[in-house]
Amino acid sequence: MKDLESMSLKVENGKLFVLDQQMLPHQEDWIESKTPEEMSKIILDLKTRGAPLIGVSAVLSLALYAEKEPHPEKIMAKAELLRSSRPTAVNLMNAIDRVLEVGQKTQWDTLEITKEAENIFEEDVELCEKMASIGSQLIKPNENVLTHCNTGGLATVGRGTALGVISKAYENQKGIHVYVDETRPLLQGGRLTTWELESLGIPYTLICDNMAGQLMSVGKIDRIFVGADRIAANGDFANKIGTYSLAVNAKFHKVPFYVVAPFTTFDKNCPNGKEIPIEQREPDEVRGVKGSFGKVVWSPKNAETYNPAFDVTPESLVSGYVLDKGLFKASELSKAFEN
Amino acid sequence: MKDLESMSLKVENGKLFVLDQQMLPHQEDWIESKTPEEMSKIILDLKTRGAPLIGVSAVLSLALYAEKEPHPEKIMAKAELLRSSRPTAVNLMNAIDRVLEVGQKTQWDTLEITKEAENIFEEDVELCEKMASIGSQLIKPNENVLTHCNTGGLATVGRGTALGVISKAYENQKGIHVYVDETRPLLQGGRLTTWELESLGIPYTLICDNMAGQLMSVGKIDRIFVGADRIAANGDFANKIGTYSLAVNAKFHKVPFYVVAPFTTFDKNCPNGKEIPIEQREPDEVRGVKGSFGKVVWSPKNAETYNPAFDVTPESLVSGYVLDKGLFKASELSKAFEN
Repeated sequence: MKDLESMSLKVENGKLFVLDQQMLPHQEDWIESKTPEEMSKIILDLKTRGAPLIGVSAVLSLALYAEKEPHPEKIMAKAELLRSSRPTAVNLMNAIDRVLEVGQKTQWDTLEITKEAENIFEEDVELCEKMASIGSQLIKPNENVLTHCNTGGLATVGRGTALGVISKAYENQKGIHVYVDETRPLLQGGRLTTWELESLGIPYTLICDNMAGQLMSVGKIDRIFVGADRIAANGDFANKIGTYSLAVNAKFHKVPFYVVAPFTTFDKNCPNGKEIPIEQREPDEVRGVKGSFGKVVWSPKNAETYNPAFDVTPESLVSGYVLDKGLFKASELSKAFEN
Repeated sequence: MKDLESMSLKVENGKLFVLDQQMLPHQEDWIESKTPEEMSKIILDLKTRGAPLIGVSAVLSLALYAEKEPHPEKIMAKAELLRSSRPTAVNLMNAIDRVLEVGQKTQWDTLEITKEAENIFEEDVELCEKMASIGSQLIKPNENVLTHCNTGGLATVGRGTALGVISKAYENQKGIHVYVDETRPLLQGGRLTTWELESLGIPYTLICDNMAGQLMSVGKIDRIFVGADRIAANGDFANKIGTYSLAVNAKFHKVPFYVVAPFTTFDKNCPNGKEIPIEQREPDEVRGVKGSFGKVVWSPKNAETYNPAFDVTPESLVSGYVLDKGLFKASELSKAFEN
């Protein structure tokens, strides 16, 4: 496999490294993933995350495994293992399907499998550039934009989806300001988006998730951009928990609300949001916080919790879909992805 | 001053004690407040909190001061100091006004001042019972109710406002379940409401604030009750940050949304929500969390933040006002408080 490099994933001399996102922003630790088992654990532990990045990480891991163990059955078993580590993210399924298809077509030629995994990496970089170019045109000079979770170079191998749009607008000297939802419970906004924005020198203000509505009510938010973990055929989409509540507030305040995602996030076999599986996570994530910054529990120790990793936002709350192919309405999505 | 006792405030042998709410739920520490200066600091540090409780705490502190220093000018200076410790909470202003008025009418008879402070304590207990009785009738058997922040025995000297309604419904064997917003940044829901509900044996589920909308979308929330820090003449009200976003979601999902407050929270001189002052708090509260459970900072250390302690919800999003005098609509409020 050739050397590959991105903000949070790289291949060096045939070794795969992941930037441990649980350690950000206070520490930058790269960890090696030697096997699909290790990669699956890395994904489960959210050391790497972001739907596009997970897809790329998984297929690089699978291709490296195939190079060492070129047995179809073994490769397919590891593919299933990787698939199960994040059921909501359809990019993961799509990327694995593509690599397995190449395997089947080429009598499991590991050179071809590796090439397809490399292609998926490079394609993701290009997709991000395309989305950024399309989406950044929506942002007017000096606007205040808001985003949720993390969708930048820590969620893709390119410049990102929603955050790529925002950083591109900033590069184009639009004088924008970014409001960042902290994104409880795992604080991807507070830990990761803030870190990326500081790296890029983009001015931002960190808020608690429950402050976004208030900011909209006083006219401080001009536009909202979020990513997606899966977009169903009708335009309903799953994204980090809190996206839905934000979308409802955006609708109420007539603030334009855009979903930014590559075509790899689109699931034409999923008719609508009700069919998207939602992962439930550990109670401890809600009882407190844990990370490289420390661990605290503020609730009663055995407090009952509810902790869905994602929620589903119906297409009716979306102003537009910024995809690598262009800007679409929900009704145009299926047609856009026919080819 | 006679002995007085509540869940989080008591007078014993002329000494005033406050349950340190920053130490809950893991530790129950009572601290003595010897002077108005100490009480003001206790309020500023949120060791005591909740609009009705702050009002009672402040006037007990002021009356004890008056007993020792019966000089009108000194008493009035301390009153102003106490007033400034929580500008949004109108109960504080109302309670102090009442005590000063008695002072002025009685040539600063400290016995009368003390009696008025005691009256305010006892009245708050009764007001809570009245609100609980009226509000609990709105809840049907087996409903799921949601609340924000803490509005129980840790926010009043009685059974509480919104949480008093909920605990009363539970006592009436309605088989209810409570969803508790954690209430970032200061986690009054996650730390305090959970603690109270556990003490009372009421089943609850703790959620992050950004999950409430998703729960409404799947029909899991039947009714929402919140408290208020100030209700303007037209029905707009200030309450803990996050209340507004919740109210917008409630409106969107047609979930009944009630404000529960005693008449002491009503500010007839404030025409609407735009006139309510909103306190901005420290960036560190948003950059991480701090309490008896520990202290962590997860964002970049100097992250810019926005941190309003309260937000204002317009009357148009309120289904009804549960007051000690009865259940009202916004248009009926001014009339209800004429006498």
